[in-house]
Amino acid sequence: MAAPVSSQSPAAPTRQAVIDELVIANHILANEGVVDGYGHVSVRNPANANSYFLASAGAPALVSAADITEYDLDSKPITNSLATGYTERFIHGEIYKARPDVMAVVHCHCLDVIPFAATGVPLRPMYHMGYFIGEGVPVFDIRAAAGMTDMLVSTPALGQALARVLGRRPAALMRGHGAVVVADSLHVVVAKAYYLNVNARLQLQAMQLHGDGVAGLSAEEAKKAAQTYERSWESWKSRLPR
Amino acid sequence: MAAPVSSQSPAAPTRQAVIDELVIANHILANEGVVDGYGHVSVRNPANANSYFLASAGAPALVSAADITEYDLDSKPITNSLATGYTERFIHGEIYKARPDVMAVVHCHCLDVIPFAATGVPLRPMYHMGYFIGEGVPVFDIRAAAGMTDMLVSTPALGQALARVLGRRPAALMRGHGAVVVADSLHVVVAKAYYLNVNARLQLQAMQLHGDGVAGLSAEEAKKAAQTYERSWESWKSRLPR
Amino acid sequence: MAAPVSSQSPAAPTRQAVIDELVIANHILANEGVVDGYGHVSVRNPANANSYFLASAGAPALVSAADITEYDLDSKPITNSLATGYTERFIHGEIYKARPDVMAVVHCHCLDVIPFAATGVPLRPMYHMGYFIGEGVPVFDIRAAAGMTDMLVSTPALGQALARVLGRRPAALMRGHGAVVVADSLHVVVAKAYYLNVNARLQLQAMQLHGDGVAGLSAEEAKKAAQTYERSWESWKSRLPR
Amino acid sequence: MAAPVSSQSPAAPTRQAVIDELVIANHILANEGVVDGYGHVSVRNPANANSYFLASAGAPALVSAADITEYDLDSKPITNSLATGYTERFIHGEIYKARPDVMAVVHCHCLDVIPFAATGVPLRPMYHMGYFIGEGVPVFDIRAAAGMTDMLVSTPALGQALARVLGRRPAALMRGHGAVVVADSLHVVVAKAYYLNVNARLQLQAMQLHGDGVAGLSAEEAKKAAQTYERSWESWKSRLPR
Repeated sequence: MAAPVSSQSPAAPTRQAVIDELVIANHILANEGVVDGYGHVSVRNPANANSYFLASAGAPALVSAADITEYDLDSKPITNSLATGYTERFIHGEIYKARPDVMAVVHCHCLDVIPFAATGVPLRPMYHMGYFIGEGVPVFDIRAAAGMTDMLVSTPALGQALARVLGRRPAALMRGHGAVVVADSLHVVVAKAYYLNVNARLQLQAMQLHGDGVAGLSAEEAKKAAQTYERSWESWKSRLPR
Repeated sequence: MAAPVSSQSPAAPTRQAVIDELVIANHILANEGVVDGYGHVSVRNPANANSYFLASAGAPALVSAADITEYDLDSKPITNSLATGYTERFIHGEIYKARPDVMAVVHCHCLDVIPFAATGVPLRPMYHMGYFIGEGVPVFDIRAAAGMTDMLVSTPALGQALARVLGRRPAALMRGHGAVVVADSLHVVVAKAYYLNVNARLQLQAMQLHGDGVAGLSAEEAKKAAQTYERSWESWKSRLPR
Repeated sequence: MAAPVSSQSPAAPTRQAVIDELVIANHILANEGVVDGYGHVSVRNPANANSYFLASAGAPALVSAADITEYDLDSKPITNSLATGYTERFIHGEIYKARPDVMAVVHCHCLDVIPFAATGVPLRPMYHMGYFIGEGVPVFDIRAAAGMTDMLVSTPALGQALARVLGRRPAALMRGHGAVVVADSLHVVVAKAYYLNVNARLQLQAMQLHGDGVAGLSAEEAKKAAQTYERSWESWKSRLPR
Repeated sequence: MAAPVSSQSPAAPTRQAVIDELVIANHILANEGVVDGYGHVSVRNPANANSYFLASAGAPALVSAADITEYDLDSKPITNSLATGYTERFIHGEIYKARPDVMAVVHCHCLDVIPFAATGVPLRPMYHMGYFIGEGVPVFDIRAAAGMTDMLVSTPALGQALARVLGRRPAALMRGHGAVVVADSLHVVVAKAYYLNVNARLQLQAMQLHGDGVAGLSAEEAKKAAQTYERSWESWKSRLPR
């Protein structure tokens, strides 16, 4: 990415560069089937830890730079202030509040994890690309936080409840809904969302082969097998339409 | 869709706009794999509740505006009166008669529901995108209505039998055949047909993981989780070839 | 297909038209995943019941009119007489000999049927598009005919053994290999090969849902549900690359 | 491939022709889903058995001729000597050392084999395209060689341990990681990597149908059913984008 030099720091990407990368992240997630017409991805403002960027509307495949809105951590719009925004933007804001280490968040209805969320069968790391699953992937049940709902994390309180279940983990499943995935960069969060889903599919297949005898990574192997996934980003980017 | 202003009402879409949207619905259903060379989608005429629009021939991917025919609720052609029409057009006419609330109907051989129709395992809503399944998805067995047949709903009487099994529900499976899905708009019926199929796949996977312990949405959650799916339509439209 | 008028009969397609359709059949089978780099499709010469057309070499996706060769029913080339031809061309010739009603033959390694060939679980018609499975789909085990082999139907005697197992049926599976499908026209044989595979996938899913309680079509329904599949051909043709 | 005549031998391909074919092999493996952003393929230098060609960086889909580097069998770069190279290039070098018959190597995270690596269920040849599985596909468990690791074959010692488990076989699975596949030519190694994965999928399906009664090829059939796969290469090449 040939971004213009930032005035804040020689190392930091410019605001426009951050926005452009976020648009690409939206398109990659749609093109690789991690999200469909719904789902969203955000990135914390690298120049201001108290705000984050997120599209204010639209299907991920159709998001453009003009849709990207800056929100404060209460998920109130700083730019595009007339835009309503995604109903579930609180997922992002409340996680950024609770997790200073998190720089990017994906919320998806990624299909292969939904059966795990519905059964409580714990996800386990099946191969090194899913190493982060070794840190544990809890299941958020919105019923425990708020009883009967429309399943959406549509208030700050629900966002906080989700962030509490997530804790220090890299991802949480959401019963009857999907998943949330966090990471310390936009490139990594996209890859973790992708491989969370792939790993779920592999685990189901392994359990079909031999229910009780599935050996993925041990806890220590999972810890050592941390990935940057940088080659994935370039590969996915090259597959985008047009 | 930049449709010319209708002379009937400032709010109602013109006849041509309705036809154009129906062509797009045909193409989306084919492009997303909900229908293959067979299957069809109709919309009630918004200017005349006693007629509906449906292609008179051809595979959904190839339907053009010239193929769209207006039928009365007995499924006799009002326009293109020389066209034979789909053998199963009575599915549409008889449902429009029995269900004044229904504005659009899809009939598909959508693959993932066929195993459910063949086993009688009830579909359950696995996530909010399949919320409407909470209203119940009965199975129409043509044998109960007419004994040994070619499986096709090819007469008014068979269409009425199907409409009776459907009742007030959003969809019915058809043993050895496929499904019918209804909704109060064309956009929503396309999305419900799509997510009916996705939800079936997720339920099969969840049952493979943990047969007896599958927890999707509760009845009350399903009721609250109603979707407009509007983002899906734009996303699917953008994926159409050319 | 706007074919030039034949000198033999006003109804019969010209030789070139037959060849052009056979090229399209090759491309459709590859594009729809029924064949991969291997597999082949032939059509009996409508002007001479004692010969048939088949590509002499190459992957189905790459077959052009120049590759189409006329063979006699002993599978000796009449045209392109220097071409070696597919090792397994005897599948075609021996079936045309044994089955005067057959006008077209597909041999494929279509993936979803191979697990059925390996387990002896009988295929059953799951929906009307797979109606012909109701006539029975036997499994050819080359070991019964010839002991230990390279699995290929590479001699007239093996072709005859396969034709005997096929009998009057529309298709036979081949253990450790794939399937052969026959029909009274090229369009129908392509569709039957396609839906044989789809139906196998649906049956596996239904058995996963509810092993013993799978109800597809009854024998009588299967007989009544015969399809022309004509809409499929046009739809698949429109999806070909370029 | 119309390669310029080599000065070494009329039969041997030129260095540039070998490199060009290796680029195509990278693209085919990515396009057919055998590798994703990770995984690699190498070919032994036909003009010098003590060196091999491998990309020094990048996702397989994006590899170009400029990325292809010549390594000695200790996996030290002979050309592009400033390039770091893939961490796991030792897989290639150590196998070429141990197996003079091997001319090409693929390392992949091919998805369908990972459940087999995690359960120890032995792969069996389900059809003739997977004939080589009859020679046995052992599972390399890096823990047996080196205890707790990051799962990567990142040293000569680990490469040697993998080569020992591979022995004289055509492929080995790698627990929690993927597989390595070897062959006597680049075209064949690409096909064997592809069909190793397809065969795994078919075996899982067959076991779901009828756990204990799966009959693929016998040992003798598998030996006789050896394939050149040449039609596959041309077919896959024709499917590459642009």
